Amino acid sequence: MSRAPISETMTAPVTVGVSLGDRSYDILIGPGLVAKAGAELARRLPGVRAAIVTDANVAAHHLEAFQASLSASGVDAQPIVVAAGEKSKGFDTLQEVVSGILEARLERGDAVVALGGGVVGDLAGFAAGIVRRGMLFVQAPTSLLAQVDSSVGGKTGINTPHGKNLVGVFHQPQLVLADTDVLDTLPAREFRAGYAEMAKYGLIDRPDFFAWLEKNWQAVFDGGDARVEAIAQSCRAKAAVVARDEREAGDRALLNLGHTFGHALEAATGYDGSRLVHGEGVAIGMALAHRFSARLNLASPDDAARVEAHLSAVGLPTKLSDVPGGLPGAERLLTYIAQDKKVARGALTFVLTHGVGQSFVARDVPSSQVLAFLEESLRP
Amino acid sequence: MSRAPISETMTAPVTVGVSLGDRSYDILIGPGLVAKAGAELARRLPGVRAAIVTDANVAAHHLEAFQASLSASGVDAQPIVVAAGEKSKGFDTLQEVVSGILEARLERGDAVVALGGGVVGDLAGFAAGIVRRGMLFVQAPTSLLAQVDSSVGGKTGINTPHGKNLVGVFHQPQLVLADTDVLDTLPAREFRAGYAEMAKYGLIDRPDFFAWLEKNWQAVFDGGDARVEAIAQSCRAKAAVVARDEREAGDRALLNLGHTFGHALEAATGYDGSRLVHGEGVAIGMALAHRFSARLNLASPDDAARVEAHLSAVGLPTKLSDVPGGLPGAERLLTYIAQDKKVARGALTFVLTHGVGQSFVARDVPSSQVLAFLEESLRP
Repeated sequence: MSRAPISETMTAPVTVGVSLGDRSYDILIGPGLVAKAGAELARRLPGVRAAIVTDANVAAHHLEAFQASLSASGVDAQPIVVAAGEKSKGFDTLQEVVSGILEARLERGDAVVALGGGVVGDLAGFAAGIVRRGMLFVQAPTSLLAQVDSSVGGKTGINTPHGKNLVGVFHQPQLVLADTDVLDTLPAREFRAGYAEMAKYGLIDRPDFFAWLEKNWQAVFDGGDARVEAIAQSCRAKAAVVARDEREAGDRALLNLGHTFGHALEAATGYDGSRLVHGEGVAIGMALAHRFSARLNLASPDDAARVEAHLSAVGLPTKLSDVPGGLPGAERLLTYIAQDKKVARGALTFVLTHGVGQSFVARDVPSSQVLAFLEESLRP
Repeated sequence: MSRAPISETMTAPVTVGVSLGDRSYDILIGPGLVAKAGAELARRLPGVRAAIVTDANVAAHHLEAFQASLSASGVDAQPIVVAAGEKSKGFDTLQEVVSGILEARLERGDAVVALGGGVVGDLAGFAAGIVRRGMLFVQAPTSLLAQVDSSVGGKTGINTPHGKNLVGVFHQPQLVLADTDVLDTLPAREFRAGYAEMAKYGLIDRPDFFAWLEKNWQAVFDGGDARVEAIAQSCRAKAAVVARDEREAGDRALLNLGHTFGHALEAATGYDGSRLVHGEGVAIGMALAHRFSARLNLASPDDAARVEAHLSAVGLPTKLSDVPGGLPGAERLLTYIAQDKKVARGALTFVLTHGVGQSFVARDVPSSQVLAFLEESLRP
């Protein structure tokens, strides 16, 4: 209680509620939330004990402050530090995390806290979903991508040699703490990659938000209130889709806008982040989805040009030729698309659009049309 | 359709419905269900493809007939055969099963079928719960224990070096096919162990069922209608508890009658099935729970004697001295009890009773009383 005056001098965080019945939860977005983490946990989950799952990079920047915050509020917490990078998103590291949680003798009413980006969130969330058949889960996302995408909606999981995110559970967190200050230390390229997912929400069904981003993107990159506002709008947009379709039976597929092409490009570049990171694949994928929609006479080419212009303005790639190191031919790219797990029963499913903010799920796209479009897009 | 006349000449199975909202499902209980499996799958899950997870022992007896049944109904199915025994219930075999399902290119709308006992059901159910974040799941339990216990209620999981069933998910099946004919090939000891769980349902809250078992147990062992009836009553009893408390927040803990003592005995004998199998531990545990309740003046000693008499009559062990090879002292047994995952936040939780069919969850049993009772029970 003696720390209350200090808290009150800081900007109050924005709260976005995710409505999922008895699995509803709050996302807090704002500066200084690492320092407030202990107080929020102690207040919302009284008596809870915790394991903090993080990676070596994030631990170096934020673990000490995070642990101090929990400790100051009397929340007993055990850190579990995994190697940084996508390779930690597999069965081996999952077992490490599960063992760490069990070693700490945490019970079903205790919490696994994910302090990190998407990999840590997916891994820790999966562990929280399976240890003792489901423990409490708290997300403290430290990348822009995790704050606007992977920390909302309850998808958790790991990769296997067969593909990405093929194993996991839906496990909703009790609380998400998105500290916007921690984004200041992100490399510019990683911030831009997260921005691609923000733009996506505008392109799916929020044309006003897309127009707002066209005007205010520089302020979002700079930080401050515009950044908090953009993250909050993104979380609201995703929360609305997830509330309509928690388990991806229908509408939630809209969130894959740009992802079918994007995942194929990630696969075609061997998931080599030095060539293409996920958000860059999504940026190219969104531009392609708009051009493909125009090619099919579903949308105006002007919209495709507008999307491409904005993504280019912020420094994101938009063309297949933007991928360094070259790509395989159209046939091979189509193979990567058909292996995508979102392809249901052999039919090619794409998120297409009638224009900015008018996306829809097309479940019957002939692969011959995709192939022709890829061939066209690969031409210099 | 040409096979319909043959089906109609067989005894119709008993159907027990498990009411869990949109996760409700049917348990079919009766003879000849292996032969009917394909028709039931094709009718209830049209267009489904399947992986059949089974162990080497069960495969030798039933896999060919099961596959033939699916094939005759046009259900494409890939067998995944794991080693028999509890050691398959771990991360290594889980990964094998997950890989097998992914190799078969099954999708979220396809089914994992568990053909086997509790180990296979828990393992396959866990895999079904996590591959693509949840596939369809069908249980074809081949042991009495699996038919009356592990196939009802959606608990799945594996063991870790820290303990049994510490990792898993709640994942309800779409259908359970309990073929009572396959029990004819069970060793007598294994049938008795499953019987202990049947008796448990009477002891929890169905005194009439317990009295019925006292009169009819020999007919249940012999097979035929009495066996079908006893299995159906057991499934109904468990389904009722699970419907009230799917995720074990309260009432479901009643199903642990006999299990806190039982698990401690399994741990104390190193999970060596040649000394003590799970159902035998439960039998001793139920007898101890009734004697402990009498010792605490919660129930009449006559009830404890009645329970012991019936379990002994069917050939089940009821005393600590019935465990071959000797047991550690009371202090050590208490340690095994306190490590049980059902012990919440350090308090000792037991299912105690006011008499036959009047069990209740006691969350505040002083460990000193448990220790004194164990010392007394260990005295020759």
